[in-house]
Amino acid sequence: MNTPFVAILMGSDSDLPIMKNTIEVLKKFDVKFEVKVTSAHRTPTATHNYVTDAEQRGCAVFICAAGLAAHLAGAVAGITTLPVIGVPIDAGPLQGMDALLSTSMMPGGVPVATVAIGKAGAKNAGYLATQILATSNKELAQAVKQERADNAEAIIAKDKKIQSEL
Amino acid sequence: MNTPFVAILMGSDSDLPIMKNTIEVLKKFDVKFEVKVTSAHRTPTATHNYVTDAEQRGCAVFICAAGLAAHLAGAVAGITTLPVIGVPIDAGPLQGMDALLSTSMMPGGVPVATVAIGKAGAKNAGYLATQILATSNKELAQAVKQERADNAEAIIAKDKKIQSEL
Amino acid sequence: MNTPFVAILMGSDSDLPIMKNTIEVLKKFDVKFEVKVTSAHRTPTATHNYVTDAEQRGCAVFICAAGLAAHLAGAVAGITTLPVIGVPIDAGPLQGMDALLSTSMMPGGVPVATVAIGKAGAKNAGYLATQILATSNKELAQAVKQERADNAEAIIAKDKKIQSEL
Amino acid sequence: MNTPFVAILMGSDSDLPIMKNTIEVLKKFDVKFEVKVTSAHRTPTATHNYVTDAEQRGCAVFICAAGLAAHLAGAVAGITTLPVIGVPIDAGPLQGMDALLSTSMMPGGVPVATVAIGKAGAKNAGYLATQILATSNKELAQAVKQERADNAEAIIAKDKKIQSEL
Amino acid sequence: MNTPFVAILMGSDSDLPIMKNTIEVLKKFDVKFEVKVTSAHRTPTATHNYVTDAEQRGCAVFICAAGLAAHLAGAVAGITTLPVIGVPIDAGPLQGMDALLSTSMMPGGVPVATVAIGKAGAKNAGYLATQILATSNKELAQAVKQERADNAEAIIAKDKKIQSEL
Amino acid sequence: MNTPFVAILMGSDSDLPIMKNTIEVLKKFDVKFEVKVTSAHRTPTATHNYVTDAEQRGCAVFICAAGLAAHLAGAVAGITTLPVIGVPIDAGPLQGMDALLSTSMMPGGVPVATVAIGKAGAKNAGYLATQILATSNKELAQAVKQERADNAEAIIAKDKKIQSEL
Amino acid sequence: MNTPFVAILMGSDSDLPIMKNTIEVLKKFDVKFEVKVTSAHRTPTATHNYVTDAEQRGCAVFICAAGLAAHLAGAVAGITTLPVIGVPIDAGPLQGMDALLSTSMMPGGVPVATVAIGKAGAKNAGYLATQILATSNKELAQAVKQERADNAEAIIAKDKKIQSEL
Amino acid sequence: MNTPFVAILMGSDSDLPIMKNTIEVLKKFDVKFEVKVTSAHRTPTATHNYVTDAEQRGCAVFICAAGLAAHLAGAVAGITTLPVIGVPIDAGPLQGMDALLSTSMMPGGVPVATVAIGKAGAKNAGYLATQILATSNKELAQAVKQERADNAEAIIAKDKKIQSEL
Repeated sequence: MNTPFVAILMGSDSDLPIMKNTIEVLKKFDVKFEVKVTSAHRTPTATHNYVTDAEQRGCAVFICAAGLAAHLAGAVAGITTLPVIGVPIDAGPLQGMDALLSTSMMPGGVPVATVAIGKAGAKNAGYLATQILATSNKELAQAVKQERADNAEAIIAKDKKIQSEL
Repeated sequence: MNTPFVAILMGSDSDLPIMKNTIEVLKKFDVKFEVKVTSAHRTPTATHNYVTDAEQRGCAVFICAAGLAAHLAGAVAGITTLPVIGVPIDAGPLQGMDALLSTSMMPGGVPVATVAIGKAGAKNAGYLATQILATSNKELAQAVKQERADNAEAIIAKDKKIQSEL
Repeated sequence: MNTPFVAILMGSDSDLPIMKNTIEVLKKFDVKFEVKVTSAHRTPTATHNYVTDAEQRGCAVFICAAGLAAHLAGAVAGITTLPVIGVPIDAGPLQGMDALLSTSMMPGGVPVATVAIGKAGAKNAGYLATQILATSNKELAQAVKQERADNAEAIIAKDKKIQSEL
Repeated sequence: MNTPFVAILMGSDSDLPIMKNTIEVLKKFDVKFEVKVTSAHRTPTATHNYVTDAEQRGCAVFICAAGLAAHLAGAVAGITTLPVIGVPIDAGPLQGMDALLSTSMMPGGVPVATVAIGKAGAKNAGYLATQILATSNKELAQAVKQERADNAEAIIAKDKKIQSEL
Repeated sequence: MNTPFVAILMGSDSDLPIMKNTIEVLKKFDVKFEVKVTSAHRTPTATHNYVTDAEQRGCAVFICAAGLAAHLAGAVAGITTLPVIGVPIDAGPLQGMDALLSTSMMPGGVPVATVAIGKAGAKNAGYLATQILATSNKELAQAVKQERADNAEAIIAKDKKIQSEL
Repeated sequence: MNTPFVAILMGSDSDLPIMKNTIEVLKKFDVKFEVKVTSAHRTPTATHNYVTDAEQRGCAVFICAAGLAAHLAGAVAGITTLPVIGVPIDAGPLQGMDALLSTSMMPGGVPVATVAIGKAGAKNAGYLATQILATSNKELAQAVKQERADNAEAIIAKDKKIQSEL
Repeated sequence: MNTPFVAILMGSDSDLPIMKNTIEVLKKFDVKFEVKVTSAHRTPTATHNYVTDAEQRGCAVFICAAGLAAHLAGAVAGITTLPVIGVPIDAGPLQGMDALLSTSMMPGGVPVATVAIGKAGAKNAGYLATQILATSNKELAQAVKQERADNAEAIIAKDKKIQSEL
Repeated sequence: MNTPFVAILMGSDSDLPIMKNTIEVLKKFDVKFEVKVTSAHRTPTATHNYVTDAEQRGCAVFICAAGLAAHLAGAVAGITTLPVIGVPIDAGPLQGMDALLSTSMMPGGVPVATVAIGKAGAKNAGYLATQILATSNKELAQAVKQERADNAEAIIAKDKKIQSEL
């Protein structure tokens, strides 16, 4: 049987540097993932074929990153009924406000789980996908909780460092 | 042989009252048209099938209206290489700013000819489609010129009426 | 053992009419849910207690609705590591743009799955929560697929009705 | 008889680097074009004379680029009834949002086919003009279809490259 | 010789109710004015002819009101070197933000003196035109000063009324 | 008797580089001017004293430049009934949108003639002040007309240069 | 000796209905207050005189409400060094976004404590003023704490009511 | 007994360079302060504990800085009834507009005293906190007045310097 994995789609290979933040989070939690460069507009057939194939091969969550009129997440959400996470990329003159609205303002019935624009959103797409997988994986759920606690410790350590320096 | 026609697509039947402004303009110029309610996200297959079929049956220009994260025009532009006109609809709390950005900020290679949000845009989609058809139809080109002149006369008449009333 | 349920939190009882759209979707899929009026700022302790208790009682997904500086989803995401869906409500003069940014632009490590502002978002929060539960529930996954197909049929029927009326 | 050509107008010579993206697309399709630096406000007479003359000499589509309160496309659309494509340039502190609204929000009767702000829009103006010419030129229509397919291949190749590198 | 007058241009007769606020201010100061409905895009020739004629007949200041992609003030400023005041009208879904940017963000060399969107701006266009005329008319300057003082008294009276009511 | 002059006020000496564009225009037309660094908030008394004194000494037009919550032009407009031109400076993270709204959206009775944000606006403040002075100075009016014609020639020359280079 | 009081200034008597929310909060805490209608631009001298007089008579906090280019709070902050709270009013077509930026984006050295646009902000101005007075008034501090607890109870009661109704 | 102090909280140590502007102002007035790095979302418990402890140890005013969906100030305002000042940080692609709305648009009952985005706001947070402390400390009130006068002198000196250089 297929192990569930996360499929990371991006509209352009220029989105990869930002999306490495997603990959890093998934690797930290040993979550299986695939990366696919495919465009909602320029390769719609390839996008459709990949999404339906990935779903059959055990994909559990899609993460879609795109800038400008960012339709990729919405297009994928129209093909599959698996959860789709959208990462708006700040790739043009409007600094991602266009991508945020194009990704989040989906009509009723076809949701996209939108995260923040850019780097913070790319990280959070990794966390959110992991949290979704963890709803049916106790070990993973425990790992997420632990990492959250570790993060808190890291902030507390930074605070201590600043206290000593001021 | 097929006579060229304009295909008007809208993401929801609630867009029809606005899009009647488009229909009115096309009727004024005796331009053939079809109306299709179809959604980029909720009926992507029907959208794809309609667009490819319409292209074969002699569609020359697509007009696509949608609100919120308005992907319909972009999705159609990804299926066909005919000119696609996008009408952003002010259907949600952001008053069409979301639809304007989702429609206009298309990535290179897949243009959408975006017109104004709402009623003015719906009218202009009709004019723009007619102007595109008129690039290869001298009679239609002449009709567009004449109507423009008539419009100017109407404004001049309104001005005279106001002069007499003040 | 606990059956997974969805917890719907809202910052004010004035958000309930919008959030009934969420409830309607969850009922359609027979997804168990709870409704809680609690404020990130005015009842932070009650919010904290409810979230930790709900998690122990089998809550699998949180849906949080708030307007203005909508912190509720973020606050809940800081308490739990379960998936948190945020619904920005258009409750003030800025028509939900404030709530959209307050909900979506979360810092790395604490994601909120943001959906559209207002009614469309409320519906989609219900769909997204169901889709998340369906990642480990094949029957539910099948129901979601079926409802998507039914929705497509409904749009196609609307199209036919419009064709006959024009 | 005149062969149809595309006239590229820009409000300032500082817009030329961006508009070279338009030129590149037109050259790729062997579409004839002219370039004209002329301002809606600073040289309105020259603009008017050029537009009426170009129309008589066989211009089929106008492409107008301008930044700030970008009136050039609208001004040209008020002179001619040929299709006018507007490219909003991100030339000032508001990053092209001013130009986008000034170009797209045209009143009913005088449409401007607006594309994306900046470089993506400049490319798409070239594609859109070509697509308009292609509505009455089967060979050109075939070339556009082929180039779209080539573009898709290029993205698929980039995807393969990334797969091999990850 | 011609007495200086103010020319009030508006892009549509639907702008007249708002622009009656301008007329009221000019009447209060016995400033001569004309009203003209003319469109930058739909009647560009009429606009051009009116502006050059008005300038010869003694027009000293132009006031131009328009909504959406409000080009009228800019177009007039490109025809004349007299001061041009622009009133952005909140006539469409973007509530005048489009008109504000289209009116104010003029390129160097062709200024438009932009006032507030809508009613407050219409009033202020009347005041500003009067103030400009008053730079070479001591009696008018004195009248403006007096009216300002009267306005202050009116506010002080409103304050007293509120004090007595609270 | 006093010769009319233009007073250029700026809220901070950091605005001077931008405002040198204003000075350059005024010098080109031999318009007398003064420069004053004074703040609406930090030196309100000095601002008040300067404005009333300048008015008595023959100031005919005020130009006020400020960034952020740019109140300087409005404050000066509340002190004098001479024309006040406001230049919004893009001095903070919001790139002058804050200054544009703070300058232009003045309440009825106290107009500010707002020009574009930043450099283009600084230039246009110089042109607009000169145009206002020219309403009662035929020689200056002629100079403004001539310079406009020269500018047109310069653009036409740039166009020729580009034609020869392409 | 003077008892500290709160001075509520508003730019127009039309702001009073919104500002009654402030008054209601201050009355709840038995905080002394005065109400003054005075405009930064139309009655600058009256504003200045009131502020300096109020300061001498024991005013401890100023609350200033204004819409559009809301300068009142900033103007008052330039006169006094007492804390000044600004309430942006949604009185024009931009729904208070202009007032929010004009009130909050003050330059360094002259702070305005800005609260939310409109009704929520009017309430919060009352709370914030009370909290400031409470920093040196233990009884008042206790009352604020108690009211916060009461508010929490009210929300919890609303939650119970909703639970019973669903 | 405890001397009142100001607690400066920031969501990330990357906010420290901006917040040094706050520290500088507090040092100028010899106001006691503490600095704490703590996150509303990542260390909510540490935030809660610090706020309640600081309140007991004599904290009189909280200053909270955060970027993106800046919830820190609101979260602190939900824990304490002491005055809370919020500094929106321009830390992401939206340049602090997200943080401004997340900080200022608080619901009724839980105010945050919001200052400008970024550096100007960080300075003003220091001034505002000092002004609040000064409402019950005459010596401090006198120092604030004196510093304001000194600032005015500095601007006047800058003006003189520019006069001599022009």
